[in-house]
Parts: sequence; C-alpha cells; structure tokens
Amino acid sequence: MSQSLDIAVIGATGTVGETLVQILEERDFPVANLHLLASSESAGQSVPFRGKNVRVREVDEFDFAKVQLAFFAAGPAVTLSFAPRATAAGCAVIDLSGALPVPQVVPEANPGILSGLGKPVQVGSPSASATALAVALAPLKGLLEIRQVSLTACLAMSSQGREAVSELARQTAELLNMRPLEPRVFDRQVAFNLLAQVGKPDAQGHVPLEKRLVNELRELLEAPLLKISVTCVQAPVFFGDSYSVSLQAAADVDLQAVNEALEAAAGIELVDADDYPTAVGDAVGQDVVYVGRVRHGVDDPAQLNLWLTTDNVRKGAALNAVQLAELLIKDPL
Amino acid sequence: MSQSLDIAVIGATGTVGETLVQILEERDFPVANLHLLASSESAGQSVPFRGKNVRVREVDEFDFAKVQLAFFAAGPAVTLSFAPRATAAGCAVIDLSGALPVPQVVPEANPGILSGLGKPVQVGSPSASATALAVALAPLKGLLEIRQVSLTACLAMSSQGREAVSELARQTAELLNMRPLEPRVFDRQVAFNLLAQVGKPDAQGHVPLEKRLVNELRELLEAPLLKISVTCVQAPVFFGDSYSVSLQAAADVDLQAVNEALEAAAGIELVDADDYPTAVGDAVGQDVVYVGRVRHGVDDPAQLNLWLTTDNVRKGAALNAVQLAELLIKDPL
Repeated sequence: MSQSLDIAVIGATGTVGETLVQILEERDFPVANLHLLASSESAGQSVPFRGKNVRVREVDEFDFAKVQLAFFAAGPAVTLSFAPRATAAGCAVIDLSGALPVPQVVPEANPGILSGLGKPVQVGSPSASATALAVALAPLKGLLEIRQVSLTACLAMSSQGREAVSELARQTAELLNMRPLEPRVFDRQVAFNLLAQVGKPDAQGHVPLEKRLVNELRELLEAPLLKISVTCVQAPVFFGDSYSVSLQAAADVDLQAVNEALEAAAGIELVDADDYPTAVGDAVGQDVVYVGRVRHGVDDPAQLNLWLTTDNVRKGAALNAVQLAELLIKDPL
Repeated sequence: MSQSLDIAVIGATGTVGETLVQILEERDFPVANLHLLASSESAGQSVPFRGKNVRVREVDEFDFAKVQLAFFAAGPAVTLSFAPRATAAGCAVIDLSGALPVPQVVPEANPGILSGLGKPVQVGSPSASATALAVALAPLKGLLEIRQVSLTACLAMSSQGREAVSELARQTAELLNMRPLEPRVFDRQVAFNLLAQVGKPDAQGHVPLEKRLVNELRELLEAPLLKISVTCVQAPVFFGDSYSVSLQAAADVDLQAVNEALEAAAGIELVDADDYPTAVGDAVGQDVVYVGRVRHGVDDPAQLNLWLTTDNVRKGAALNAVQLAELLIKDPL
C-alpha cells in the first residue's frame, strides 16, 4: 500500500458519511489529514476520528488541492457542484451519490474496471441496493445464464437518512400511545405499514430508486440487457435492507454449485438452509451480505430464489466506497 | 335467496371466526340460529351477533344435525376431526383451514366450480394470500398468457393469530423503552424487522404457507402447471397483507387493457397511477383487494408488475367464506 493520503469526506455528517469515517479508522486506512466537509447547514458539527473530534467545515470554501482523494457522500446537488472542482484540482473522486456519469464499481463484482480508469480517478460507489445485489449475484455469473431477475427490495428507514429513522420512532411511539398521527418525512403512516412507492414515479411508473438500481445492477453484472423487475418498498425497519430475489436461468440451476459458489465468495455470509438471515439480527453492523433461503422455484428447477439482508449504510454504501479506495491506492492516484 | 338457515361457526373466537360472524351480520345473511363453537380452551367466551352476546360452546359436544351450514375457521386439526361429522350429518361445509381435500373457490375467480359440487357441499375458502392474488389476477386471464408469477408476500401479524398481533405490540414497546427483548411466538425479533421464513421449510426449502399458496393459486386460476415463485415474509404490520407481484407474459402486455380489466372487475379497487395502496391506509376494514403500481418491467413490455394490499382477515378469509355461502344458498343445500 502507498504512503498516507490527505482525504476529504463530503457529506460527513450524514449517516453514510459518518460511517465512512468510522470505517476509515477501523480498517486503518492510511489517512494523513482528514478534511470533513458538508453544506453550510451541517458545517460546524464534529465527527470522531482516531480519538479526536474533527470539525466539519463548509465544502464551498475548501481547496481540493489539499487532498489526493475525496469521498462524495453528500446528495446529488452537492456532488454535481463540487466534484468537478475536486477533479480539476487533480484529486481522485469516489462518488456515492450516483450523480456523476462515471463507472460504478463493487470490488466483489467488477473490480477490473478500476485498472482502466483515467487520472485523476472518478469512480462511483453504487446505491446500497445495487451493491448488495451485485455482491450476491456476481459469484453466480459463471454458473448460470441469468435470463431475468425479479426483486422486491424492502428498504430500511436509514436509506432515507436520519430524519426518516427518527420519523419511524416518532410515529411508532405516537401510535403505541394512541395519539393521532400526523405524518412527516413520508406522506403517510410508515410505522406498522409498508410503503410501495419511494419517490415520484415516471410516466412508466418506475421511481428513480428503482431505475437507478436496474441501471447499476446491469452495469455491475456486466449484463446491459438483463431484464430486471424491481419494486422498492419502504419497510418499518430502522437499519438493514432485505431483498427477495427470484432469478430465472436459461437451464436448470445446480443448487449445490450455487451454495458452493456463495460459500466461497468474498463479501457473503451464507446462512444454513434451516435458518434465514434478518436485517436486525444478522446484517446490521456487519461487513457482508447475508444470503439465505437458497432454493428452486416450486416445480421450477430453472428458477433460483434467494433472500438477502445487508447493512445498507455500512456494507451497502460506506464500506464499498472504502474498499474502492483501498484498491485505488495500490497504484499512485 | 332461500329461507333462513341454521349455521355453525367453528373457531368462532379466532380473528377470522369473529370477523366472519360480524360479516354475517353486516351482510344480513339469512341466519336463523347461530351456533358458535370452539375447542375446549376457548369455549365459554362470548361473541356479539345482532346485539346479543352469543356464548361459544365446545365443538366436541355439538350435534351437526342441528345446522345446514358450518364454517370451519379453526385450525387444520379441529377441522379434520369434526368436518367429517358435519358432512355425515348432511351439513354443508365451508373449510377455511386448507385441511380438507376439497375444491378451493374464490367467487371472483372460479365460481363455476360451485355448481359441480355434490351434496352435502364441501368447499374450501383458500388462504388469504391465494384469495387476494386470485381476485387480482383472474381478470387478467383473458388478456395475457401468464408464463410465470414471482411473488413476495408481506404478511401481517394477524395472519398468525391474536398472539402474534400482541407480540408485535409487546416487542415494539419493549424496544422503544430500551428494555431487553425476549422473543415469544416467533423465534426472534419481529418488531422493526422482517422474517423471511414463516414456518419450517421442507427439503426443497419451501415452507407450508408457500406451498399452500402455490397450489391454491394454480387451482383458483385453473392453471395447474403455472410457474410460481413465492417468498412469504412476516412483516411488522398488525393487519393487512401486501404483495409485490411480477408476471411474465407470453407477449407484450397492453397496460391500458390491464387497467380497464382491473377497473371493471369485482372485488378490486384500482388505485391511481400517481398513488399506491397500503395495508394500513387503504386495505384494512375493506371488502376489496387494492391494486396499484400497475407497470411494465424496466425495458420489458412482456412483464407486468403490481402491488396489492388487502385485509387478510376480512377480504382474504372471512368475507370470501361468506361470499361462498351466499352463492351456495341460491340453490338448496
């Protein structure tokens, strides 16, 4: 690994940004100076790193020539405004927002893309959903010709940020105390309920989250024409996404080979057949995608069904970005 | 309609049984005498009917010759023990347990079956999931050749009975009060979590609920070889099931024709394209299956995606049984 780097994290006060800083510390990433940045509303807060509280400064005033690598864990608007400035200053950019038109990479799925990138590097760390699914499905590419993927993604509140996490707690408490509910953040009751349309649908009825997931998953699996149906559901779960996955293959699926491939793959914890993973009990706080309920369709051996759970903030987002950085710094940035 | 009937409801103290009694009253079903029955543990309780409290008696001691129609809303064991006795006494049986090897019927899907039944009638009112899906999919049969169905069923606590409903409330309160959780009813935390394996899987990895759903749905849609993948998930929702449905058709799906068919169909409320139904906000307490998010797959016009919500206890179970009875009594039982 190369010598220490000066690093900027934009969006450092968000759920993903804060976790990213924590993972840099946990994994002993070679950080020389760490610059935590955010929009003006969040600047002034502090985030702990290596036993100190690092003050978060305004991204507007930052000189990207001070750093060699910047993680953009802010929203698309902030990323679109400031990432070009970072690139112009010669700084490598890892974009977690999906806003930049750059290759999306998950180390367990398509790491080869990294070696073909120009300098300064610009690379995308995909949505938490695409990351989790790519980690789980990439090991199966050599085993089966996937004709079609049907997905129901049950997303945690944390995928919508801190306000959504608080709103679930608030709504739940109001309901348990028999008080009338006035929804905030979401347009209706999300406690003890499931919301099947997260965002505004386009003319075809797909919401941006779903379109992003389809596009990113096709890119990560290097299957640009793969048919993918996706329904993203907001579940009353604080942390940890769950995915019900049904794959249609061109031929009968060898379940033993699938289990062996999943068992051997990086970034995956395969759960025993008589058990199954859950978001809360297994995935949260962990660095792997949990895979369980590996089975054929009923009377359909060409179908493969899986249930996945993952820590959306950690494995889905922050850790993937740090893993990308670890691969990138093997070469000079 | 014929003259009034003497009726028995077995399992009258359960969530479905109690709702069934309520629906008999609401729909002014021609009940002469109502006999409420249950196993010895539940006998002695009372259930309201037409302004009176009707005492629940032990099914063991009941003489089925007293009634012309019996609803079996108890568990499979009770049904297997006592339904043959009812039939031997010449009493028509509507089985909600799935235990009897009898035709399953949903009036909106396959009502024609009723006219071919021998006397005394024995007919099944399917699982709440199969009922909801049959109501929503039957109107599409003439429009598209369904090759395959992928389902993720997010089931409410009430589908597992009163103890499960109470357990979600108890777990939620414990967690909000930061007290340690000792799960009951389920083997783990279900509050703020999703459990993807409801029951014990067979050697192929399918749980009985999923197998029952596949078998019943094939029967109701009169498509015995239809490929159906199902994942039943226990959601932290008190009442109301939600279904993420993806259909693969043999040819491109005409969405306008689908919307028109759903709009015209009995038992369905089609939700506007910019809105979507939820269990809590729409389905609970209602007599229809809500259908929303009607759309193609991304870049796949031969795929049809839907989101359904329904009151599992009412529309999924109790109402369907009463609707069957309404059709049956048009002829002498």
